[in-house]
Parts: sequence; structure tokens; C-alpha cells
Amino acid sequence: MNASDHDAKRRESGTDFMPKFDANGLLCAVVTDHASKDILMVAFMDSEALEATIETGVAHFHSRSRGRLWKKGESSGNVLQVREMRVDCDQDALILVCDPAGPTCHTGARSCFYRGLNRETGQLETS
Amino acid sequence: MNASDHDAKRRESGTDFMPKFDANGLLCAVVTDHASKDILMVAFMDSEALEATIETGVAHFHSRSRGRLWKKGESSGNVLQVREMRVDCDQDALILVCDPAGPTCHTGARSCFYRGLNRETGQLETS
Repeated sequence: MNASDHDAKRRESGTDFMPKFDANGLLCAVVTDHASKDILMVAFMDSEALEATIETGVAHFHSRSRGRLWKKGESSGNVLQVREMRVDCDQDALILVCDPAGPTCHTGARSCFYRGLNRETGQLETS
Repeated sequence: MNASDHDAKRRESGTDFMPKFDANGLLCAVVTDHASKDILMVAFMDSEALEATIETGVAHFHSRSRGRLWKKGESSGNVLQVREMRVDCDQDALILVCDPAGPTCHTGARSCFYRGLNRETGQLETS
């Protein structure tokens, strides 16, 4: 087994947290509502955001548009209290199971996923 | 309102499906189990994978490691039948609500998120 296979195996079946960031230093984080299990939002974390989240217990992300650390709810007050963090097999994606203090979406919607795609018409429908 | 603000507004509140791919031509797709609401996996889609998914009703992704279209379950048979597709406010992330034909993870686990992070110890725990 070469070093890269060995790393992949450790990532997949080990107990060590070895988050795998992409070429831009990011990984994908999915926020779910602890109470309803609904997905509230999807965002990206760099190592700084991940460390801040682990340390504070409140969700932090990396804002790609602003190019900086972003504490979710820093302006709205709608912070996300993290109850549980889960990681996938190759450790390049995370789930944050959260208690939201208010609507998660900046539009005021409870979840950012307020529209479904009608595959017949190709149009979005609010539901 | 400039053209970019106008586009952002249409993306956010309109009924037109205007998926926003990143600089690498990808967007993030989260697969959930229709029955349990559990998150099964997270992967990336390019426009080819998105079109194939919409056309066939079976989840397709873009494999970043193999650099090609990847029909989930193409070798294992564990395809994901898509019941519903949802899109977020800025249309750069999708949810595929699916009926999985078998375990989704290549490790044989039902979900790729078979480990939680213990924030006290920094170690992963299977649960």
C-alpha cells in the first residue's frame, strides 16, 4: 500500500479527524435543523472556519464572495448552535446538526432551499 | 440596479432555474433519503451531470478524481432514484431527495456520514 492509499484508508475507517480541503482550501458543510432534520443551508469552510466552529460551538464559514471568515448570524443574530458534527467517508464534507436561532436564509426563509425544481417544466416552484 | 444585482435577484426570487456553477464548473449536491430524511452523501455536479440527472431521474455527478461523468451506482448497482430536486437561494447548491437502491457509501454503509466528531476529544466516533 503506498502512502496515498494508506492516508485514504485512515481517512475512511480511522478515528482521526483529517479534514480534506480542496485546491481552494475549502470543504462543503451542510447545515441541518436538529428538530426537523431539514437542510437549512450549504456553505464552505476553510480550516479557520472549522477551528472557530469547533472552538465556539457556533457555525462559522468562509465567505467566498467576501473572502473572509463569516460567523453565520453575525449581522442578523440568527446564529446556528452546533449540536453535532458529522464527517463523510473521505472527510471532504461535513454535516452540522444545529439549533437555529431564527430563519437561516438571508431572504427570511427558514431554509435556503425554499424552491423545488419541476423537472417537467424546468421551472422552480415555492413549496 | 446593475446587471449583476438584477441576476442575483432573479436567481433568488424567480421561478427560472439558473444554476450557478463555480470557477471549476461545479455545484454542490446533497443527497437525502426520502424515507428517513438522512443525508446519504455529498457530491459535485457539472452541467453535464445535472442534465443527465434531470433527463434520467437517476442521480449523476461529476467525479473530480476521475474527471468524468459518474452515474452513482454504475458499478455497484446502488443507484439513486430522484424523487425531488430542491435549489437554494443563490442556486449554487442542490438537494436530491432520493430512493436509494442499496447502501450509498462505497464502504457499504447506508450513508457516507457514519462518523461523528467528538468536539471534546477531537476524535471521530462511529454512530
